[in-house]
Amino acid sequence: MNTARDFNPTVFAELKALLGERATTSTAIREHHGKDESYLPDAPPDAVVFPRSTEEVRDVVGICRRHRVPMIPYGAGTSLEGHVLAIRGGVCIDLSQMNQVLVVHEDDLDATVQAGVTREQLNEHIRHSGLFFPVDPGADATLGGMSATRASGTNAVRYGTMRENVLSLKVVLADGRIIQTAHRARKSAAGYDLTRLFVGSEGTLGIITEVTVRLYPMLEAMSAAVCAFDSVDGCTQTVIQTIQMGVPIARCDIVCEKTIDAINRYKKTSYRVAPTLFFEFHGSQASVIEQAETVQSIAKEHGGKDFVWATKPEERRQLWEARHQAYFACLQLRPGARAISTDVCVPISRLAECVRESVEDVKDFIVPVPLLGHVGDGNFHLVFLVDPAKPEETELAKQFNKRLVERALRMEGSCTGEHGIGVGKQDSLRREFGEDVIGVMRSIKRMFDPDNLMNPGKVVPE
Amino acid sequence: MNTARDFNPTVFAELKALLGERATTSTAIREHHGKDESYLPDAPPDAVVFPRSTEEVRDVVGICRRHRVPMIPYGAGTSLEGHVLAIRGGVCIDLSQMNQVLVVHEDDLDATVQAGVTREQLNEHIRHSGLFFPVDPGADATLGGMSATRASGTNAVRYGTMRENVLSLKVVLADGRIIQTAHRARKSAAGYDLTRLFVGSEGTLGIITEVTVRLYPMLEAMSAAVCAFDSVDGCTQTVIQTIQMGVPIARCDIVCEKTIDAINRYKKTSYRVAPTLFFEFHGSQASVIEQAETVQSIAKEHGGKDFVWATKPEERRQLWEARHQAYFACLQLRPGARAISTDVCVPISRLAECVRESVEDVKDFIVPVPLLGHVGDGNFHLVFLVDPAKPEETELAKQFNKRLVERALRMEGSCTGEHGIGVGKQDSLRREFGEDVIGVMRSIKRMFDPDNLMNPGKVVPE
Repeated sequence: MNTARDFNPTVFAELKALLGERATTSTAIREHHGKDESYLPDAPPDAVVFPRSTEEVRDVVGICRRHRVPMIPYGAGTSLEGHVLAIRGGVCIDLSQMNQVLVVHEDDLDATVQAGVTREQLNEHIRHSGLFFPVDPGADATLGGMSATRASGTNAVRYGTMRENVLSLKVVLADGRIIQTAHRARKSAAGYDLTRLFVGSEGTLGIITEVTVRLYPMLEAMSAAVCAFDSVDGCTQTVIQTIQMGVPIARCDIVCEKTIDAINRYKKTSYRVAPTLFFEFHGSQASVIEQAETVQSIAKEHGGKDFVWATKPEERRQLWEARHQAYFACLQLRPGARAISTDVCVPISRLAECVRESVEDVKDFIVPVPLLGHVGDGNFHLVFLVDPAKPEETELAKQFNKRLVERALRMEGSCTGEHGIGVGKQDSLRREFGEDVIGVMRSIKRMFDPDNLMNPGKVVPE
Repeated sequence: MNTARDFNPTVFAELKALLGERATTSTAIREHHGKDESYLPDAPPDAVVFPRSTEEVRDVVGICRRHRVPMIPYGAGTSLEGHVLAIRGGVCIDLSQMNQVLVVHEDDLDATVQAGVTREQLNEHIRHSGLFFPVDPGADATLGGMSATRASGTNAVRYGTMRENVLSLKVVLADGRIIQTAHRARKSAAGYDLTRLFVGSEGTLGIITEVTVRLYPMLEAMSAAVCAFDSVDGCTQTVIQTIQMGVPIARCDIVCEKTIDAINRYKKTSYRVAPTLFFEFHGSQASVIEQAETVQSIAKEHGGKDFVWATKPEERRQLWEARHQAYFACLQLRPGARAISTDVCVPISRLAECVRESVEDVKDFIVPVPLLGHVGDGNFHLVFLVDPAKPEETELAKQFNKRLVERALRMEGSCTGEHGIGVGKQDSLRREFGEDVIGVMRSIKRMFDPDNLMNPGKVVPE
């Protein structure tokens, strides 16, 4: 572990002169910023700074550049593949004090926020307007972090991921230039798509300081449904047909029987212990009724049982809360365990096959391995509950994960649907794309960051 | 004009050895490939080749690279800003013989095609499946060309542009590497978004040879409506409120009174001569009724008159044919004229203001300047009908266009919603983004194409 004493005192003096108490080498704060929600070993930065403006970020970048010190942007620390770990030491740039909603354009359905604004904060801020920001990765992540990792979540099937929902970014580049990647127009054919280049770049090409996102109208009616199936195949066939019929489902998640069992124990519910789909429908009153009826009849054709349909807000909330709490419910399957979550995404036609092989593959793991996923996108997670005191369990999970990635790639899928690459998936990225594409990504990295100071050691294998 | 005789005979001999009769310096073919639908002067290439595979494209690129000869990819030649003009001479790579639909995955709602497949060809190919490809720029462009220019059109308001609808691309890079930018999974958080970097790059970073696109279900019901308003403001307020209410309109176009007048003359229709909205609704039977009723009542609040609603396929077709023929109808306002189409995109809240100022600005032009646009996206076109024999008219139109771009930028818009940059809008691109962003784009260009051979002189000002 880097200690504060290793750190170039001139750098810290300059940061201190710039930010005063908002620059620190406190051990507690450094340690807090040296971990995320991954299984990877902690790696604290040498210092942590809390800028409040794009200009302050630029000045921090200037200091770090002059002294060749790595910079790691930090949002809410909820990433899952080691994105924020200071594996080469350096300065953690915590953007949480850049938490202003700068402007909301209700007529244009967009908002511009500082990078440290969280999605729940934004939704609270615009609640009165009848609009909402849909991307929901589970954690209350910052919009900057969500942009940087190309986050998505339960309702991407209807509203898209951060890729589709970021209109523009303000970014501080490694050389101190501040760029705005686009204007506010809904669409544009003007030049290279720099916005999409920074979405998903995980802080390796520049530091996102402002985000302009799309907003959506909160529709008149919402309803939810849950339905058990004999098999995962019944679930995926139901979803494929639902999408092919053009039913605009807002959410559509799958959990396996182990997850349902965990939910039943945790929430004292009594769902049938079987592969289960959770749905949410948004639309007019008439439309949500029609959507639910259509899905119910499709589900029935594919062996769906106990279709429960919740239209009252309280029932709907309870139903989706069961899904939202699934992760925590699973953690209770092995108290004290650390969760390692896998994350592959395959074409939906291959989902049942991929899940079947994967469930078979993990059946001998020391404890049950629950599965949950965003089935409309072909994205699912297996959650390994490992004893942190037994590194051989983590090793087993990593081996399973490696096979899972190979399986997904063989089925024309991706090694990550929404968690990103970080430190943990660089080998997977190489397997997914091959050396030529990795070479192109490496050239892009070098062009933006010739001294390799922007979150070094992340995304692109060196 | 370059003549065949200026062209390095070794290069042509090598192309000929590779492709036989599919490499030509025929004057007629070169001249045909030296023009697009823009107002810019013709610029024929020195030779034209017709590869049939990605490997042949790679070999053509290899020959051109060795001899430092520019390469210009060519699809259907329907671009509007000089994208395909061989302004530095070189070899035009016509992809129209790469016209195979390679695979359709009905369960996954995607298809992979060679770059020369046109959108109508793809839709014809998948007609039996109940699926369709929605992006519709008007012309029957190739999917490769549409990807390269980030095309959109009338139904982007619901289905998105090429940016949202390309899942993956196969690209031949300047150095001969062939890369696949992504797998077929619906979403991915794996590495830099190379797909989006090539979408809209206009052949300046590499040559797109295969395109994987999203498909959508053809919904049970479609209906259309048309409604006249006292003012453009009434139109935009109607659309803003329609979108805010979450009505999932599939198309929503505006035409001005001059355009309606042109349509009436051309199609012998009798629409009220006033700013007019055309709508299309897709959904279930019940949903399209509900959508149309909602829009009708919103339109009424904002001065909408003569709301006509067409549910029968024939009526619907006729109604939208009026809109689709608007461009040709306008051309009849001045027989023999050449059309120069502007193309800005602003936040929808500024659309009425931008249109009002622009209409005022063009009122003294020698002939009426009709307006049409994709109002749901804030994207509109003014069509200047100029006499090709009078260069001063083209000059006037260019001056108007310059002011129009300035106006759109002042309103946080973009200099192009869907036509792209090509040769014609490089100054506008610079005004839109400023030198720092242009510098970044230039670095990207240099990284991919250090010898400046890939469609040189396009997109990024040199």
